[in-house]
Amino acid sequence: MISARLRTAALRSFAALSPLCLVAASDPAPAPAPQGPGDIVAAAPASDWVKIAPEDLLVMELSPDAAGKPRRAVIQLMPAPISQPWIGNIRKLAAAHWWDGLAIVRMQDNYVVQWGDPDGEDAAKARPLPKGLVTPSEEDYETGLPQAPRDQTGAGFPVPPPRLAPDSYARNPHFYKSWPMANDTKGRIGTVAGGQGGYPAWPVHCYGMVGVGRNLSPDTGSGAELYTVIGHAPRHLDRNIALVGRVVEGIEHLSSLPRGTGPLGFYETPEERTVIRSVRLASELPQAEQPQLEYLASDSGTFARYAQARANRKDAFFNIPAGAADICNIPVPIRKTAP
Amino acid sequence: MISARLRTAALRSFAALSPLCLVAASDPAPAPAPQGPGDIVAAAPASDWVKIAPEDLLVMELSPDAAGKPRRAVIQLMPAPISQPWIGNIRKLAAAHWWDGLAIVRMQDNYVVQWGDPDGEDAAKARPLPKGLVTPSEEDYETGLPQAPRDQTGAGFPVPPPRLAPDSYARNPHFYKSWPMANDTKGRIGTVAGGQGGYPAWPVHCYGMVGVGRNLSPDTGSGAELYTVIGHAPRHLDRNIALVGRVVEGIEHLSSLPRGTGPLGFYETPEERTVIRSVRLASELPQAEQPQLEYLASDSGTFARYAQARANRKDAFFNIPAGAADICNIPVPIRKTAP
Repeated sequence: MISARLRTAALRSFAALSPLCLVAASDPAPAPAPQGPGDIVAAAPASDWVKIAPEDLLVMELSPDAAGKPRRAVIQLMPAPISQPWIGNIRKLAAAHWWDGLAIVRMQDNYVVQWGDPDGEDAAKARPLPKGLVTPSEEDYETGLPQAPRDQTGAGFPVPPPRLAPDSYARNPHFYKSWPMANDTKGRIGTVAGGQGGYPAWPVHCYGMVGVGRNLSPDTGSGAELYTVIGHAPRHLDRNIALVGRVVEGIEHLSSLPRGTGPLGFYETPEERTVIRSVRLASELPQAEQPQLEYLASDSGTFARYAQARANRKDAFFNIPAGAADICNIPVPIRKTAP
Repeated sequence: MISARLRTAALRSFAALSPLCLVAASDPAPAPAPQGPGDIVAAAPASDWVKIAPEDLLVMELSPDAAGKPRRAVIQLMPAPISQPWIGNIRKLAAAHWWDGLAIVRMQDNYVVQWGDPDGEDAAKARPLPKGLVTPSEEDYETGLPQAPRDQTGAGFPVPPPRLAPDSYARNPHFYKSWPMANDTKGRIGTVAGGQGGYPAWPVHCYGMVGVGRNLSPDTGSGAELYTVIGHAPRHLDRNIALVGRVVEGIEHLSSLPRGTGPLGFYETPEERTVIRSVRLASELPQAEQPQLEYLASDSGTFARYAQARANRKDAFFNIPAGAADICNIPVPIRKTAP
């Protein structure tokens, strides 16, 4: 909604507006106050950035676009203890090159894009899964949820100020190792028992988060069929599906795909599908091809100031700061670095 | 994240999952309990649906896609008293065929797609605006906000049950004439005075909402440059920009456009832009070309049950209902009807 006249002035706050906050390490030095979120991130000391290990990155190469340009999306896998059985399977599937030649099978507007084996439900045609995959139970998901204290100011849980306002879904949205999480101490959700003085916190379905497709309960999915959120955060999926990661580079190659016209946005013909050339753990790629990415540490002072600025926009464009921000409107800054 | 095996079973709830809930009037009859949101909407009596007058619809015809297929997006303008000076301008711009031959100029992932005059900021090349446009002030926006009572259960304000949970941005999200709104009685936002026993309620930036591009304050935009939300609701824009409508058909033609690679997602070359063939008020079109659309009345019992079901998903897929839904996760159902 900003006009062309403002493009140059707006450059400084570009990073904070972009979906996953991909900022170049060479961004300009901070401007005088009031600082926008982008200024704050650009001024972060190197110690506030954390390199993403190649073992935690999945590199998905799609077929080139109509103009012949390569399309690559990179997914960061979630840290332990969250969703480890599924993530273990995903590492094995990538090591087996299982996704190579499969496809994007579904694109539902304002919801999700999903990929896997188009013939996965046809036993006669489905590609066999590699050996050694586990079959996670619903309890495995709960077991993997980190414990949060009753009050997010409690010790032992890295929640930076400012406290995020409660949202419609949870009393206690927060960041855990730079992942968007929520928990609730009201007992509204009765099936989860609190741990020792704590309450489980779960990852939430923000834009770009990656989850595991599944059939009806008790099926929990193997990890062979994955999706990412490309619309308004579908928070009603939180805790109903195992989240395993987030797209940290190239989400535009997924979010701009044509919408499927079948039910739930499934493509109706094979020709409509986008082919997946390969999916690799970055650690399997030659070093020169490994994505070099860092995220801003959510327990850093910079992150706290960034979140505060997202909630109280004082950039010149804003007349009325909101005074709060929902957790999915505080995208964790990601940046590329030199190899 | 639903698997192919579930596609058929999921057909019934398809409508409620789709972005703007475009449901065919011929949807199947409701199934036995538990009813999903789509079942509830499909069972609505005709009296719960409201026809959108052609005077309130803008029909935007884009250039055909790469396969030669036509691309049409339809925008419903907001009702009085909201944003009337801008909407008056927009009617005049459409009547003057002002947008014909102009373009989509910006596409920022997880944020907005924006259209208007690519040369609008160059006085020598800009297309002249038609005569008779007004220059709205910031006060005009506040004046147009409907009053909400202190408590949303108060008389005189059509807020259906269930009460929506407060969100990060406002204590009182609700629907006003089937538009997503919010207000707050805390006085947190000091620049707005409450009216007679009431507090102003403002429209919110959900997916598909259409707003007016502007420069820095005190500029408020004329309505010649418009955008729509194609990502997670950027609620920090609420009250900072005049919202004027929402996309009720064809948003997939906008949301799937290639992302711009310039700052803020502006396209860097004219070739990247999508041409707007025409924008017309539907009332100016031959009757056979007028979109026939209805929305579900937010003060109907059906809508209340639909919102309740969105907050407490009991479809077979869900194990743990969220217990609440944020207002942008309760998209107002829109359906096509026979002419």
